[in-house]
Amino acid sequence: MKMLITFLLILFASTAAFPQSDKQKAKIMSEIEKVMTDQVAAWNRGDIEGFMDGYWKSEEMRFVSGNSISMGWQAALDRYKRNYDTKEKMGFLTFSDSVVTVLDKNNAYVFGRWTLERASDEPTGLFTLVFRRTDDGWKIIHDHTSS
Amino acid sequence: MKMLITFLLILFASTAAFPQSDKQKAKIMSEIEKVMTDQVAAWNRGDIEGFMDGYWKSEEMRFVSGNSISMGWQAALDRYKRNYDTKEKMGFLTFSDSVVTVLDKNNAYVFGRWTLERASDEPTGLFTLVFRRTDDGWKIIHDHTSS
Repeated sequence: MKMLITFLLILFASTAAFPQSDKQKAKIMSEIEKVMTDQVAAWNRGDIEGFMDGYWKSEEMRFVSGNSISMGWQAALDRYKRNYDTKEKMGFLTFSDSVVTVLDKNNAYVFGRWTLERASDEPTGLFTLVFRRTDDGWKIIHDHTSS
Repeated sequence: MKMLITFLLILFASTAAFPQSDKQKAKIMSEIEKVMTDQVAAWNRGDIEGFMDGYWKSEEMRFVSGNSISMGWQAALDRYKRNYDTKEKMGFLTFSDSVVTVLDKNNAYVFGRWTLERASDEPTGLFTLVFRRTDDGWKIIHDHTSS
């Protein structure tokens, strides 16, 4: 019995300090990468709602682009629909140089670069995405983009 | 004995799911706010090294400003010293509208606005700071700034 208690205490202490093993971390990283791959696929078939599925459907979801802030999932969707109202404006999206940092089993952030290949130009920029594990999978709760 | 095991299991489960009580969260928020207050005070007395004390002294510390990335604490210090080589350029710094989000007992992020009041202009922008608890206190491990 003593051994069981000792085991539970060690489990408790180690979980608090190191919330995940390398295997768990790798699993989280691949889950998050899957969300982003799905986002890119949705964007490139002209499906902004599908792209927005990667974001937390909450009024608290914050989207920051340059010097502007929008709060809430719906506001971010409206913004995307307004700014990218044709397939030409949407162009072909790629994410590159993405680095996923797992903070604990429920939180992570991703830093990387987005690029849109379009007929007339090729806008590019950097993003920081804070991801949280929700009942509905990993979702972006905070997006800070700059170019 | 059974009760003790049950208690430990509940403690374990609750710690994993909700890493901190409101009181612990408030403590973390005030510790992080203190780091940022100290940074502003250092900046406003012309002490860039003091300002940089809020950042993680690591080669992995990432500083993103608009479309440029610098890696490592030293590179960020050099960049600040280069861009703000006079007291006039440094101006008077304020942070405003800061929102601290505590992710768990060792991780948090802060979103807010920075403004420099200077004789000739007033540059302003938004920041996302990822903070980690280190042996040396809470430090910024990732800074994404845009204007």
